[in-house]
This record gives sequence, structure tokens and C-alpha cells, in this order.
Amino acid sequence: MPAPASFTNYIDTHADAFIKRLGDAVAIQSISSDARRRQDVIVMGNWLNGQLNELGIETKLVDLGTHEMQGQTLQLPPAIIGRLGSDPAKKTVLIYGHYDVQPALKSDGWKTDPFTLVVDEDSGRLIGRGSTDDKGPILGWLNVIEAHKNLGIAMPVNVRFCFEGMEENGSEGLDECIQEEVKKGKDGWFDGVDCVCISDNYWLNTRTPALTYGLRGIAYFSINITGPGQDLHSGLFGRTVHEPMTDLIKLMSKLVDNNGDILIPGIDDMVPPHDEEELKLYRKMDYTTDDIEEAAGGKVALSSDKTTVLMGRMRLPSLSLHGIQGAFSDVGCKTVIPAKIGGKFSIRLVPPQTPEKVIPLVNTYLKAEFAKLNSKNKMEIEYLHGGKPWVADVRHWNFEAAKKAIEAVYKKTPDYTREGGSIPVTLTFAESLGVNVLLLPMGRADDGAHSTNEKLDRSNFIEGTKVLGTYLYEVGAAA
Amino acid sequence: MPAPASFTNYIDTHADAFIKRLGDAVAIQSISSDARRRQDVIVMGNWLNGQLNELGIETKLVDLGTHEMQGQTLQLPPAIIGRLGSDPAKKTVLIYGHYDVQPALKSDGWKTDPFTLVVDEDSGRLIGRGSTDDKGPILGWLNVIEAHKNLGIAMPVNVRFCFEGMEENGSEGLDECIQEEVKKGKDGWFDGVDCVCISDNYWLNTRTPALTYGLRGIAYFSINITGPGQDLHSGLFGRTVHEPMTDLIKLMSKLVDNNGDILIPGIDDMVPPHDEEELKLYRKMDYTTDDIEEAAGGKVALSSDKTTVLMGRMRLPSLSLHGIQGAFSDVGCKTVIPAKIGGKFSIRLVPPQTPEKVIPLVNTYLKAEFAKLNSKNKMEIEYLHGGKPWVADVRHWNFEAAKKAIEAVYKKTPDYTREGGSIPVTLTFAESLGVNVLLLPMGRADDGAHSTNEKLDRSNFIEGTKVLGTYLYEVGAAA
Repeated sequence: MPAPASFTNYIDTHADAFIKRLGDAVAIQSISSDARRRQDVIVMGNWLNGQLNELGIETKLVDLGTHEMQGQTLQLPPAIIGRLGSDPAKKTVLIYGHYDVQPALKSDGWKTDPFTLVVDEDSGRLIGRGSTDDKGPILGWLNVIEAHKNLGIAMPVNVRFCFEGMEENGSEGLDECIQEEVKKGKDGWFDGVDCVCISDNYWLNTRTPALTYGLRGIAYFSINITGPGQDLHSGLFGRTVHEPMTDLIKLMSKLVDNNGDILIPGIDDMVPPHDEEELKLYRKMDYTTDDIEEAAGGKVALSSDKTTVLMGRMRLPSLSLHGIQGAFSDVGCKTVIPAKIGGKFSIRLVPPQTPEKVIPLVNTYLKAEFAKLNSKNKMEIEYLHGGKPWVADVRHWNFEAAKKAIEAVYKKTPDYTREGGSIPVTLTFAESLGVNVLLLPMGRADDGAHSTNEKLDRSNFIEGTKVLGTYLYEVGAAA
Repeated sequence: MPAPASFTNYIDTHADAFIKRLGDAVAIQSISSDARRRQDVIVMGNWLNGQLNELGIETKLVDLGTHEMQGQTLQLPPAIIGRLGSDPAKKTVLIYGHYDVQPALKSDGWKTDPFTLVVDEDSGRLIGRGSTDDKGPILGWLNVIEAHKNLGIAMPVNVRFCFEGMEENGSEGLDECIQEEVKKGKDGWFDGVDCVCISDNYWLNTRTPALTYGLRGIAYFSINITGPGQDLHSGLFGRTVHEPMTDLIKLMSKLVDNNGDILIPGIDDMVPPHDEEELKLYRKMDYTTDDIEEAAGGKVALSSDKTTVLMGRMRLPSLSLHGIQGAFSDVGCKTVIPAKIGGKFSIRLVPPQTPEKVIPLVNTYLKAEFAKLNSKNKMEIEYLHGGKPWVADVRHWNFEAAKKAIEAVYKKTPDYTREGGSIPVTLTFAESLGVNVLLLPMGRADDGAHSTNEKLDRSNFIEGTKVLGTYLYEVGAAA
């Protein structure tokens, strides 16, 4: 069931007002990872809450308490839980978004002031911090509701909202907040939720809308090697002692091969091979290795075969070596034998992998490899943090509804994608509510979400708003 | 020819005054690597110059110009060139020392104020920054000359002096100063120098005096890997691109084996094997693997055989991995794929190795190993700095004189040692003057020269002064 023509017309005719409102949101410097901006995040939460209330959405601000950051005790910005409609005959959709943003300074390389939304008429870009991550998508939902309110049309579904102000800084307190709301059952605002929609990621490219049904998990480790009592001088001690760096580098060199294969036995093997049907999904995606190399800023793709690259990102685990703590890392020529070092690496996980399943494999392998070195140093494997992967059923009516909405608005079949990274709240919703979760991106691959000159294309904002509205109609019509 | 009894008596009876003078020197915070202390280094130079003049030594202060440091243009402390005696019938000994010190703060872990010389009566330790490195040895020479002046005895040799105030900060300007003085020939103050004596290193242990006849050189490299245009997110790019860290860690793992063997073909092979006579030297040294493990602060010696450990430090090259520039090195769990990294390592060199000889071996090997990786990243091998090794002829009368002096004062045969590190001025003297250079350490292995609670044992200061004086008599008597 498509959205009524009056709705899409309203979106087109009010585009400039929507962009102005996005500008108002971008102007609030709601940087959650900077203690000096914490008050701005709270101001942004209040601004958003006011907008929701004006549109007739009932809200409550959930106090998430305080946390320690940059040597200060800071108030956490509130989670905003909202509800609109309680018609038992209608489906109920829970919408998530975040109103905080990444840091941005003009001196980082921005061509314009990051907190003044610039409308570039030539390129059609709306440039500013938070334009695509995630203020644009949040305001997309508000645009939809405003249209219905002002047109006097009933919403096709009941809507629940969950907006947070700490997504760019670990989503502190959010999991507990969601779980508590769910636990309230009939008395909670998430009662009766039929599906979840999150608009906080990106198309695979700059051309084709996408639906995202998977996220990789992660297990992050440090291989800690100790031996000498203090850092030693390489002139005095070189070739007399077991140097921790020699051991660590040998171990780190045995984790991943240059083609990306993970060398820890049992990790790659844990993932079932793809079947022909899945392969077709990747073949169909509008993607080339040029896309990945453009995004990476260098001709460094692991393969010239696009399906290999896509599967490497979406359906296979990956192992990255991040660096070494405690070794010499500065400019110059320090002749040090570092005494106490930690080699950091992480494994991105895909189903059926979980941190619990890979930790023992990592431990067993590294202990065996370390034993082979005959070193008198000590090794300890430290598991630093992790999270499970997530994959949704794309045949669910929630995904079908989004597919139809995209086809109606963009006249294109969406790419079905899995993200290589993680959005932890996805798993929290899926596990605590037990319903299908859909990732419905509004922006494009080149939006530069965490980078300089972040933008949302005007067409993605306006057509994307239509997709969000149409999606709700398709959900409402789903059997 | 032993020193006259009146000389050794004078040293014993004036010990307290010598220690007081050492205290005056330690009190001047002549830290050459701290811009805020530069004026103190110059004050120290002037103090030393005054002491030399009072003892009848003619001096000239050589202006070494200015240098840039910590954002400032700083005056370099002067080199002090001195002379005492010009009897053509006597040998001429050139003495080197440095009057600057390493930084020291009580908060670093000093038990007493670093710049107040503390005489610990129980342990016999003289504790303070510069006590052993290198103010104690410099004042040892002054003690010798004072004794002769006050006793009215003629010095057995002519003496030339070269004292600098930048040794702990790269000896800026010193090489040029020495070379210019040598170039002056008959008009220069170094004309007619027969041998050089440097007292600026340490015994091999805490028990047996040493003579040092070798220093390792160094060649310092960075393996630079680049590929992606900017740091990438491991979620988005893991298993899709050639990660520079994967390449770098593989290359670094192929440089040195866990037993200390250098894996770059041709480097270890370049060193001639030891003969039985040389082996005897190492066997004879008063040393155990406990000594090295105590110094290293951990049970991490590469071998339980002392000759293997000693040869590893003294007569073999060593390769140490220092760290990685541009990778993640902080605490925490950054999920970064670093885009532009440099792996730092250095090779300590022994004759006949030179930086010029090992650089092509390093380049050839690493290029071949990198080619095997089939990576699309780029590798560049950067040679950062280096210096040649040095070995002196221990059968020279200069070494014989020092050996006799040690036997006379300590009633022990010295250990003949080679240092694993470098003292670049040694090579400058050897090459520019073409005479034998002797390293005659005053302090013990546990003096903590660059560490907290630096000390010089009272007996090393006083008996060491006797050794310096007796050495001059033995030089004077040498055929």
C-alpha cells in the first residue's frame, strides 16, 4: 500500500522548511565525547523533545545518571522515549535514532563551518556535522509525522520512539534503559512493538538504496608480553636478553595472512560456506572494487572480484592488527628495548561466532605459538571487550515493507547489505523485544559520517523522508 | 712505574675535600636536554673552567654556536680545551669528559634530592645526578692534578683536555670542534697527542675494574608502509583491503629470531668467528648470567652460558625492534586500521660492519620479503641514522699502562670489555688523531648512570683517582 499522494506532495512542497529545521538541529553542537559540549547535547535533547511534543508525540525523558569522563563527573544526556497512537488494530513500529554527533573543528579540514548547515546548490549537498549521522534521519521521521498532522491524515501505524544522546560515545546507559522499559511489560511504552526500524547507516555506494540485515560482532584482545623489569638500552642489552618485542611481533605475525585469512585455527572454519543463492545477493549488489578503493583512498582492495570483497566485509570474520601499547611510537630514533608491551588486535565476528566461542580458540593458539618461541618472557592474553554479531531475516514483512517503499520512491530494488561494523543497540532491541529489526539507511556511502565535510544529499533527505513514510504504510498493510 | 707514595697518600688524606668538590659540581643542574636548564650547563662549564685555571691548566672556551631545541634557539655550552705541560721529552695524553648530565626529578623515584650529593656512610655511596656520569671521573682528573700541584711534584706526562657540555644531548658541535683543532696541526692544542683516555663508562660488574676496547656501532631504520588514504575503520574495511599493519608485522617478524640471530642474510656472517684466544678473554671475565638478569630486572637472559651472553653484547651485532610510529599505541580499544606506519628497528654493529655495508643488505632483504607478500601497499625503507663500531688494540702501551695502574691500585687484573652501546667521540678521536684510545671506567655496573639514585661508590672515586694518576705514570714510563 503506497503512501497517499497528498503525503508525498507535502514532503516536496515543504522541502525547504525541512532543510531549515535540519539547519536548526545541526547548529546545536551536541558532541557527546567532549565534556565541554555536554550541556549542548542536553540542549539538543530538549530541542528534539520540544519538536516531538509540538507534533503531538507524548514523550518522557529518561535520566541515565552520571558518568566519569575527562576527569569530570558528567550528567548523561537523557534518553527520549516517545509514543504516538495506541490503536490495537494497527501495527506498532519502534524507531531509533541518536541526537549526538561526532566532534568537528573547522581546522580539521572542513571547508565550511561544521555547525552551520550549508546548502550547496550545485551539488545538492546539505553540509554540516550531524546532517547524515544522525540528525537528518531523525528529522526525516519528524517530517513524516508533521505531514500527517498538518494534512489531517491518520498515521498508518502506531509509532514508538527511542532517541539517545550518547551513541558516539558508547551509548552509556541505553541498554539498561531499553531493558527496563521492556521489563515493564504492559506498563512500559515498548509494549506491543511489532518491529524496529533504525536509520543510522549508509548505502553501499552513492547510487542504490540499501536495506541492511546484518552487523558483525567483535572480540578485542591485547597480547601482553613482559620480561625485563624496566625498559632497557638496546646497546647494553641487545642480543643478551629475550626482547618482548621480538616475541610479540612473531605472535602478531601469526594471526592473519596477507590475503585476509585468519590463521587462528577454527575461526574462519566456524562460518558456514555461502550457497549459490547468497552468492547471487552479492553478485547483484551495485558495487565495484573501485567503490571500495575510492572509500579507502588507495588502490588496496584485497581482490579485484567484487563478490570476494563484499563477502570479506559482510559475511566473513576479519582480523585487524591495531598497534602496540608500551613500545616506542614517537618520531625519532629511541634505542629502547620496551619491557612491557601489549599488541592490540580484534576479530570482527559473524554468525555463528560469538566472543565466547572465539576467546578459547585465540587463547589455545597463542599459548601454543608462544611456547614454540622458547622465550623466558611471560605472555598474557587479555580480552578487552566484545559484542555478538547480528543477522536478521530479510524475508520478514518488516524488510518486505521497506523494499516496497524503496521501489515506490526510488524505482529501484535495494541492495541487501550487511555492515562490517557494529551498532550495538540493534542487538539489544532484537534480543530484548524478540522482534525483527530493520536497518533502513537514508544517506550514501560517501557522506563522511565521522569525517570532515559530512553531508547528506538533499535528494536523500527528501526522497528518504518519503521512503520512511511509505515504509510505515507498507508495514501497516503487511499481513 | 708506580705513582709516588706521596701522591696516593695525598689522595687518601684529601678524600673528604674531593667529595665536597664533587658535591659542588653535582649541585649545578647542568641538564643539557632541557632548554630551561641550558644556563645551568653554561654555569657548570664556567665553574669547571675556573677549577682548571686554579690548578694551573691553560684553557680556551670554544663557542660551538647555537642550535634549535624545544622551539627555542639556544646557545650551546662551550667545549673546554685545556693544556698542562709541553715537555717534548714527555708523552702527551688527551683526556675527555663531559660536564652535562641527564635529567632528574625527585618525583622520578629518587630517594634523595638528585642535585644534593648525599654521602651514605653505611653503603659508602655518593648519591647524586652526575656523580658517576661524568662529573666524578672529571673531578678524578682534577684531584690528580691538584695533588701534584700541592705536593710540588712534576706531572709524568703532558696533558690535554677536551670537556664538553652536550654529551647527553647528541654532542652537538663537538666533532667539528675536535676536527678543527686537529687540523690546526702545530698551532693546535692537540698537536703531539700520543694517546687518548676517556673515563665515561662502567665496569662489567660491581667487583672488578675494567678496560674497554670496543664499542658497537648502529644503523637505525624505519620500514614505512602506506596504502589507504587515511586511517580506516576496521568494521567497514576489515578483510576488504591490504592492511599496512599486516604487512609491517610480517616484515618485522622476519628480522630477528627469538635466540637473537639476525635473519637478514649476510649481517651475522660478516663478523669473523672468535678464536680460542678471544674466547678465553670472555671466559676470564668476572661475570655471570645473574649479573645480566639483575641488571635487566628479570630472568630473561638469552643463554645460561656467560660467554654466549657476553659475546652477544660485545662482539656480535644485535637487532632490536623498538616500536611502530603511526599505529594505535594508547590505552583502550581503538578499532583502527592504521594507514601510514613506520616500524622502527636498529642493528648494533661490530667490525667489520659499517652502516654503509649493512644498508644494502637490509634493503635487498626487505624488498624481497615484501614482494612475497603480494601486497598492494607501498613499502619504503628509511635509514634514519648510524655510526661505525670501534675496536682498539689492547696490546698497545696505552692499555698496558692502564692495566698496570689497575693492578697496582686494586690488586686485580682488569676485565677487558667491549661495550654494546656507542660513545661517538671515541671514534672521532681515533680517526682524527690516529692514536690509540682507551676507555678507563671509574664506576660500577650498578651506578645507574641514566637512572634514578645515580651513585658513585666512594671507593671507586678515591681508588679510581689513584688509578688515573698511576695510569699517567705508567704512560710516562712506557717505551
